[in-house]
Amino acid sequence: MGVLDKIYEIVSKDRVFTSKSDLYAYGFDASIHHAMPSVVVKPKNSEEVEEIVKLANEHCIPVVARGAGTALCGQAVPIYGGILLDMTGMNRIKEIRIEDLYCVVEPGVIYAKLNEALAKYGFFFPPTPGSGDVCTIGGMIAVNASGMRAIKYGATRDYVLGLEIVFPYGRVRFGSRTLKNSAGYQVERLIVGSEGTLGIITEATLRIAPLPEKRAVALASFNDVVKAGEGVASIIANGLLPSALEIMDKVCIQAVKKAMGIDLPDAEALLLIEVDGKEKVVREEIEKIAKVLERKADKIEFTDDEERMAELWKGRKGVLPSLSRYGEDMISVSLADDMSVPISKIPIAIKEFQKIAKKYGIIVGTYGHAGDGNLHTKVLINPKKEESWKDAEKAVNEIYEVVYRLGGIASGEHGIGITKAPWLNGDVATMERIKKAIDPNNIMNPGKMMQWKKGIIAYLRYK
Amino acid sequence: MGVLDKIYEIVSKDRVFTSKSDLYAYGFDASIHHAMPSVVVKPKNSEEVEEIVKLANEHCIPVVARGAGTALCGQAVPIYGGILLDMTGMNRIKEIRIEDLYCVVEPGVIYAKLNEALAKYGFFFPPTPGSGDVCTIGGMIAVNASGMRAIKYGATRDYVLGLEIVFPYGRVRFGSRTLKNSAGYQVERLIVGSEGTLGIITEATLRIAPLPEKRAVALASFNDVVKAGEGVASIIANGLLPSALEIMDKVCIQAVKKAMGIDLPDAEALLLIEVDGKEKVVREEIEKIAKVLERKADKIEFTDDEERMAELWKGRKGVLPSLSRYGEDMISVSLADDMSVPISKIPIAIKEFQKIAKKYGIIVGTYGHAGDGNLHTKVLINPKKEESWKDAEKAVNEIYEVVYRLGGIASGEHGIGITKAPWLNGDVATMERIKKAIDPNNIMNPGKMMQWKKGIIAYLRYK
Repeated sequence: MGVLDKIYEIVSKDRVFTSKSDLYAYGFDASIHHAMPSVVVKPKNSEEVEEIVKLANEHCIPVVARGAGTALCGQAVPIYGGILLDMTGMNRIKEIRIEDLYCVVEPGVIYAKLNEALAKYGFFFPPTPGSGDVCTIGGMIAVNASGMRAIKYGATRDYVLGLEIVFPYGRVRFGSRTLKNSAGYQVERLIVGSEGTLGIITEATLRIAPLPEKRAVALASFNDVVKAGEGVASIIANGLLPSALEIMDKVCIQAVKKAMGIDLPDAEALLLIEVDGKEKVVREEIEKIAKVLERKADKIEFTDDEERMAELWKGRKGVLPSLSRYGEDMISVSLADDMSVPISKIPIAIKEFQKIAKKYGIIVGTYGHAGDGNLHTKVLINPKKEESWKDAEKAVNEIYEVVYRLGGIASGEHGIGITKAPWLNGDVATMERIKKAIDPNNIMNPGKMMQWKKGIIAYLRYK
Repeated sequence: MGVLDKIYEIVSKDRVFTSKSDLYAYGFDASIHHAMPSVVVKPKNSEEVEEIVKLANEHCIPVVARGAGTALCGQAVPIYGGILLDMTGMNRIKEIRIEDLYCVVEPGVIYAKLNEALAKYGFFFPPTPGSGDVCTIGGMIAVNASGMRAIKYGATRDYVLGLEIVFPYGRVRFGSRTLKNSAGYQVERLIVGSEGTLGIITEATLRIAPLPEKRAVALASFNDVVKAGEGVASIIANGLLPSALEIMDKVCIQAVKKAMGIDLPDAEALLLIEVDGKEKVVREEIEKIAKVLERKADKIEFTDDEERMAELWKGRKGVLPSLSRYGEDMISVSLADDMSVPISKIPIAIKEFQKIAKKYGIIVGTYGHAGDGNLHTKVLINPKKEESWKDAEKAVNEIYEVVYRLGGIASGEHGIGITKAPWLNGDVATMERIKKAIDPNNIMNPGKMMQWKKGIIAYLRYK
């Protein structure tokens, strides 16, 4: 009996996809990479995942889990083929325990749906990824996703209390349904950010938090990106802890204005600052922040008007798509797109990126979560010109050099996957030891992160 | 050349201890266990630790790291002898980067000293262990320590941004000096709570937070422990997030009153609730909490008087020593002392513990961090009576059974060590896989946690 027949014994036929068109479509995520799986399986429970992984392990077939496919670095692209597990069928919210401050979900639950369900009780799951309307909790855990509220609320890793995981050797549970846990290795926290290279998440117990009473926003414009960076540092050094502290450089501001028609000041840099908390203190906090920025900013707009706040956030979230419409025949490419540096290094990082862009005659737009040092840089290129790709590659290399020089890392929230694998630092030997201990046959999302090798990557989707 | 001579080549003689009296003294931590190391070495930097561990690995000699020796479950007791590393010599605060929201410390830095240094800038390292005045940061990371502020601020695991670790095969770095990190396996978070069984921490980069503007306290007394537990649940379900939410049962209240002369109400249970934040909202929050508790509590005292708050906290912190003075010839023993249950299970857990105590005619005092479901149970026994130990053992077994039935775990913040090893749950096979991958010769704190076996434990210090 062939492997496919064995798969049909585990999962009903209507949840197994083998047609060329399906396999082609499932070969994409939101990265620049593409590769076709041998078969796509859509499990509906932990037992099925366990059986499939066991089968794959017996036959040494690669297994790649996929949530909503919003990964930006190729985490969900099955570069060695094999079995692609579409986890979106496991999308039940199993428990919401407000009194116990946790919820239990399957990995295919969409972030926004979970927060909708929690909002009824006045609670939320705080990590706020940009793709939150569509991305899945499993994917968030796999890459340790965060977003604009990490400065105050932390990242996904800070909220994972327990996991059920399918390893090649079986299904295990780690962590607990308690807020505190000092009982044994925190394997659940090792799984966070491991990008499916160790096991498949089949259930997650997540800490939840009460929704803030009120939010308010300040928009500060600067005639110099260094001044904006200094503003960030002053806010933090003064012990003010906004719930979001976002930066946009000139390229991004212009892109958003042009593509979305949103009313933003013409400035070299903008800071978009959100404060949340009790009604009484939100205004006081925004005023303190305004005072701190007074001497550095050209103009500060304050608002707690829901409509204007929504517009401003729409503008901020629209940076990525807007950049693709910045110039004719141009697309924005996720290459060096998610670096993280110590917060105070932000102004110098942006300055250096601008220098690099100028040197290669390309356009680099930088925006991101200034409050936690997480910068998104998009390189705008003409994808049809070979020369553009080469210039972009050189520029990207130099961008990473700057990041490392400033004490930063390759990824703050998107993960490593394929795209950022060449720039992964940290002790690769230890990662391989752990990988081998858990997955000796190397079936779990092989070839990613520390296993990436030059020349074995999937092809670029634009080529 | 013998191993000792090789040690002398790495560390100067005045930092190597071999006398019987030194070895005897170093054989204790704050647990009921004792075992003598073969030699004690007090390194002063990472390089020395690396050399010592390398040497130990070559000769398959156990290595146990020790901070202030405040571990309650025998984590620092070298049950197989070998090299005990006294890490208190590595006590430098290397960097405080307020603008970047992190600090870098050596493992021997004392928690209180770090917070003293951070307070100058209006910042702090939030996990607040009861032993904070003396315990070290390295020890806190090793057991994932937390304390009474975890409900709002989380545990040590949520603050570790980066670590330098000496593994048997060498010194490596994981994590970063950035607030966000999705770049590779989060090995630094696996090390948190691994109790020295994987590697020795030689440097830690920790996230810090701004100190709250103000704190205020409410003391609520109940004529029934179930009502107190329901009070906890209501506070949380109402989206109120106090900075501490502590519970004490009658035994603990009486012990504190008697031993310390602190003015506390005679009640079946007390809740001690702290709120922190902006001046304006602290009173509002405490009032909201008082309103929620109104129908359940007999009496609610509110105070923001520094002196009274200090007295109340002194009473709460004094529970542990006070319990040892509860009766003649009695000591309080840390056996089932740190269970964690889902928050809403607290009242039923305490009720069940009381039943068990009654059944065996022993005294069990329960107190702890109700806000995060973390309970400390002290069994009061006459250490000289063999019968007492046996009854205590039976009672403790039943206490753990209750905890598991309620969805709890053996340790919320003290760790597993030896004392709680028989009750460790979670997948031991996975822990062993990871342990073997990192430490194939099993030299790092062997025999603890999942490696504990009946009959090989160190002897009890009181026997």
